[in-house]
Amino acid sequence: MPKAETITSAANPLLKDVRRAIARGGLTEQGWCVAESFHLLEEALRSDCVVRMVLAADSVRSAAEAHVRRLPGVKVVVLPDSLMQSISGTETSQGVMALVQPPEWKLEQLFRGSSLVVVLDGLQDPGNAGAIVRVAEAFGATGALFLKGTVSPFNAKTLRASAGSLFRVPYLHGLDASLARAALQQNRVALYAAVPASNGAPARALSDVDLTAKCGLIIGNEARGVSGDLRSAALDLSIPTVGVESLNAAVAAGIILYEARRQRARKT
Amino acid sequence: MPKAETITSAANPLLKDVRRAIARGGLTEQGWCVAESFHLLEEALRSDCVVRMVLAADSVRSAAEAHVRRLPGVKVVVLPDSLMQSISGTETSQGVMALVQPPEWKLEQLFRGSSLVVVLDGLQDPGNAGAIVRVAEAFGATGALFLKGTVSPFNAKTLRASAGSLFRVPYLHGLDASLARAALQQNRVALYAAVPASNGAPARALSDVDLTAKCGLIIGNEARGVSGDLRSAALDLSIPTVGVESLNAAVAAGIILYEARRQRARKT
Repeated sequence: MPKAETITSAANPLLKDVRRAIARGGLTEQGWCVAESFHLLEEALRSDCVVRMVLAADSVRSAAEAHVRRLPGVKVVVLPDSLMQSISGTETSQGVMALVQPPEWKLEQLFRGSSLVVVLDGLQDPGNAGAIVRVAEAFGATGALFLKGTVSPFNAKTLRASAGSLFRVPYLHGLDASLARAALQQNRVALYAAVPASNGAPARALSDVDLTAKCGLIIGNEARGVSGDLRSAALDLSIPTVGVESLNAAVAAGIILYEARRQRARKT
Repeated sequence: MPKAETITSAANPLLKDVRRAIARGGLTEQGWCVAESFHLLEEALRSDCVVRMVLAADSVRSAAEAHVRRLPGVKVVVLPDSLMQSISGTETSQGVMALVQPPEWKLEQLFRGSSLVVVLDGLQDPGNAGAIVRVAEAFGATGALFLKGTVSPFNAKTLRASAGSLFRVPYLHGLDASLARAALQQNRVALYAAVPASNGAPARALSDVDLTAKCGLIIGNEARGVSGDLRSAALDLSIPTVGVESLNAAVAAGIILYEARRQRARKT
């Protein structure tokens, strides 16, 4: 095994780049996303994505090297534990970060069979966005659309909350609402906007909606909900609840996707 | 209306106390929890909880005073915007914090009718814990148990994620697992431990479990899952998924509680 490269200076350009990417919630200048934790490293290695490099704290160097052993092209760069913690986006870093070339998907890859596409419309919390992609994969969604104004799928926190699903679920990001709407309509997808049960305007109750046909599920911003442009093209859909105005966005998405899966499994 | 009190010094003992409570994720020394945002202030005022005081940034003073107008006993303390932002637990503070006497519940208040009690077993993420209490209320859970080692229900972030449900849903906190187990068994509650579908040991699939009888749903730590002591007294329950190892804890809780509600509504 080649001797691992070592970085000891906080001023190292690569580390500065990684730190900036984490801070602004996006890609590094070279277009890599930051996948922090052994679990995400493993998910990245098992996926079709290219792992460009692994940063490892001194104390977990051999564990990191063991993970990448079967992929000899992957370089491990070792840094002091304190330096790793200082660039980490987590309070208690596991000491390992994979720099991953994110997958590039084409629009048509989001649609297949009885398409089930999740549209993230202005969500701001990376934890919510990632959890939604995770549950989308879990219940057989065929793709995800991150609309303009939504937290980035490349945000290290989004990636972490997706638990690796962002390495596998086809998605596009940065589309504006009108383009997304056209794409969804062109693919003959029935659009549903998740709205609070107490929203005033009558919405269909989740159990009364047939989610077995091709459909798109729009999850809106945590405070403002689904934006007007998309909502006008969609049927309002609500989860019957008692006592609360609305649910957490990821929880609501999870319940609707679970119901879609339940209906689809019953039909086949 | 009496002239509002004003605080201008960061060294003020009350502000230092509030800042500490937010930082350590617990109550102030006087036993008050910190409810940040106009929404939580409103939820606190509408609940049976006693609002001890409202801190308001200068720029939102009249809005805060308008909120508490119908409760003349509630004092509004005004501080400069910069000082408010410096003690806030959020990146973009709305400039208002209610200091609330949390409700005190007795164990028997968590059990009524076809009890549905959620047990939080070691969850660390306040966003998850709060979202679980929020969805518990939404689907008619009768109570929640925060076991020892779980993030505090008084953590300002837990409270915020609960969107006010923690002012209404009966809960106890700090119980150790054996005590909780005894209490649940004494109340003849069937215990279910939420486990990943890929967990090895065969678990009941969610759709095959009857959740209409009295039951307790145990949601475990984000990384380690449900602890041994409680799990041995419970039936393993899993949500059938594809492609992912597990779901976000709040999403999983939401789906199981939705299913419980669905079954219970069908039965009546």
